[in-house]
Amino acid sequence: MIHRSTPRVLATQLSEHVGETVQVAGWLHRHRQLKSIGFLIIRDRSGLTQVVLTDPDLRIAEESVLQIRGVVTANSQAPVGVEITKPEIMMLAAAEQAPPFDLYRPTVPASLPVLLDQAPVTLRHPQLKAAHALSAAAVAGFRTSLAEQGFTEIHTPKIVESATESGANVFTLDWFGRPAYLAQSPQFYKQLMVGVFERVYETGPVFRAEPHDTARHLAQYTSLDAEFGFISDHQDVMIMVRSVVAGMIAAVAERTAEIELLDVDVPGVPEVIPQLHFADAMRMLGKGEDTIDLAPADERAISAWAAEEHGSDFIFVTGYPMAKRPFYTHPEPERPAYSNSFDLLFRGLELITGGQRLHRYPDYLQALAERGEPVEPYQGYLSAFAHGMPPHGGFALGLERFVARLIGADNVRLATLFPRDLHRLAP
Amino acid sequence: MIHRSTPRVLATQLSEHVGETVQVAGWLHRHRQLKSIGFLIIRDRSGLTQVVLTDPDLRIAEESVLQIRGVVTANSQAPVGVEITKPEIMMLAAAEQAPPFDLYRPTVPASLPVLLDQAPVTLRHPQLKAAHALSAAAVAGFRTSLAEQGFTEIHTPKIVESATESGANVFTLDWFGRPAYLAQSPQFYKQLMVGVFERVYETGPVFRAEPHDTARHLAQYTSLDAEFGFISDHQDVMIMVRSVVAGMIAAVAERTAEIELLDVDVPGVPEVIPQLHFADAMRMLGKGEDTIDLAPADERAISAWAAEEHGSDFIFVTGYPMAKRPFYTHPEPERPAYSNSFDLLFRGLELITGGQRLHRYPDYLQALAERGEPVEPYQGYLSAFAHGMPPHGGFALGLERFVARLIGADNVRLATLFPRDLHRLAP
Repeated sequence: MIHRSTPRVLATQLSEHVGETVQVAGWLHRHRQLKSIGFLIIRDRSGLTQVVLTDPDLRIAEESVLQIRGVVTANSQAPVGVEITKPEIMMLAAAEQAPPFDLYRPTVPASLPVLLDQAPVTLRHPQLKAAHALSAAAVAGFRTSLAEQGFTEIHTPKIVESATESGANVFTLDWFGRPAYLAQSPQFYKQLMVGVFERVYETGPVFRAEPHDTARHLAQYTSLDAEFGFISDHQDVMIMVRSVVAGMIAAVAERTAEIELLDVDVPGVPEVIPQLHFADAMRMLGKGEDTIDLAPADERAISAWAAEEHGSDFIFVTGYPMAKRPFYTHPEPERPAYSNSFDLLFRGLELITGGQRLHRYPDYLQALAERGEPVEPYQGYLSAFAHGMPPHGGFALGLERFVARLIGADNVRLATLFPRDLHRLAP
Repeated sequence: MIHRSTPRVLATQLSEHVGETVQVAGWLHRHRQLKSIGFLIIRDRSGLTQVVLTDPDLRIAEESVLQIRGVVTANSQAPVGVEITKPEIMMLAAAEQAPPFDLYRPTVPASLPVLLDQAPVTLRHPQLKAAHALSAAAVAGFRTSLAEQGFTEIHTPKIVESATESGANVFTLDWFGRPAYLAQSPQFYKQLMVGVFERVYETGPVFRAEPHDTARHLAQYTSLDAEFGFISDHQDVMIMVRSVVAGMIAAVAERTAEIELLDVDVPGVPEVIPQLHFADAMRMLGKGEDTIDLAPADERAISAWAAEEHGSDFIFVTGYPMAKRPFYTHPEPERPAYSNSFDLLFRGLELITGGQRLHRYPDYLQALAERGEPVEPYQGYLSAFAHGMPPHGGFALGLERFVARLIGADNVRLATLFPRDLHRLAP
């Protein structure tokens, strides 16, 4: 459709073409008609372009897709210092329906259900779009950090034979006439792959049949997983977490337009992220010794403490009780009721869970026996350990939680293109 | 476990440390005991290290995980010119079971079922591992090429409300008590997202309940998807495909060790990949005008022709009959029985499917009406077009097929870590 003879120029490149005849193309973001002059604001993937109209009778529905040939003209009054004059306008596709709200409003004036129900059009709002651009940058930063440290990307099965890691909250499907399950995490597979590549990561969907309707749970989310061998203990994993989170934040920080649009307070990542042992956290919070998990309020209190004491948006809570961790968790050698595991809290919310895993075959058999769990459903998984596995550990980060916390959204659904939850299966 | 005081050095870096005391760590790949001297070959993520033994009575099971402190000593007889002498050996984890075959054999001596059944250990064989390293490189090349051209990464739902794109071959699951389906492709979502970002890509799992047990079908595979707006027609998509495939091949070609190990014949990618219209292909193959699809033998014949006539491992077949393409396909303007779509064949196998899509809302309504399909199940999808969408198109590449063809594997399962098919749900 675009005339190949005249180059298409993106909004952000226009100022390099003053005086030239170019084409711009995009969505009609806004039409402002004054008495004798009018303006079309065209939105393309890079930004906004102002087009000066001389035909006072022109009527085009907003969100229509236009291709405009015209002259790039300097105008210090225009939003980016240039505008298009003498436009020839071609309609590529007329908008047949109006969006649920004006997409040119600087902030989003709609409720969450409206945003989600009409996501194919509401996501076009520059603020909503920006959140997902930051999300993409964060994932790129995750991959780059790990690739630089010798990690290999893997793709593991999302359909599994047994609902092993946690019997609850698993989706069942019909696998050629027999039951199978959607994977709740790539945990077992990434551990197996340490035996092959030593260092692996995966960025992919995981599934939780969450019966709770909360602002921080999704039935499908994007899990950023890493696992690696030849560690001393979980402290080596935490060092890796620190470098990966710093890489993600650095990649996000490069998206200056979106950062500004969303007024994001980009966190600094301390060289050494402060840490607090679970037992010390309990003492600090005045909880009893039989407490084995942190409530959301506890996480907020610990984060507030980290911000105040250490000036850090991040804090590791280490040593979670073994009773609250899965069977593959490595215990703390000196205090085996605690574990060589951690959570990373980010501004009051659990962002990353990780730790050292068991690596010796007999230790797995013993751990399952102590928990009264059968060995048989885990046989394929355990075989890797019978064939020799190094001390290893890893972590998983929920992408949507990270982005929601980063942009200050109070619901993780605002960091998900098309969320899935107890009530939502479309669009 | 690793002594932090002595640095761990990878096999490929050892030659930079001649004369130094270092640590190496990895799996015991092979133990060779001669009369008065023995050798341990240690496999780490980078390669192999030879360790010279002086204790003739040492017995360690292969695949045990060892950490070895010793002196890096030049020896032109050693595989990489250096070896470790005066070793102190520490066992990190003993192998309790033997692999199904010796992992040090240069080629893989086992049948496909053995390889797949025992994947957690057989994938450690350097040749099998190498295929997956090339796969990771290919995905990185895909992403880099697209990111450089302004594409944004997206993550779309894998659980969908209706089995819309093709009613057959879809997995059904229990979604909080009601039926839902596993996504067969991100097609609809990537099109919607053209309305937001103009240019998007996704690398993720897709699911096909394939009732056929063939060497080229999987029930879960990794689909590399891209979609973008403001095209003239499918030829613009094919130009993009060419640049992305070239980027993938270039990324693969950098993995020289794996290329050599697998004796991969890295294909050149012509500046302009040759193309053949479906109608012309039919004439060339002597098929009747009522033929609407290519059989595998046809694809092989066309590829052979491309290799002979054009010296190309790649060829586009364009203009597939509309009768064989989904409803969202854009017809060929001059001959509407054909379409603005294409397949890319690579060495005899369909690798990529793509084309221009319909972009106007009324065209969608008409296309569904002509096929006698109801509008209602597509309403969420169609709404994006009612809100204004540019001319657009895209493509999808099956990662495992690409890798299998690249390495000359006759079964796509050899390019999949843990394949899922009609009969296989584990490991």
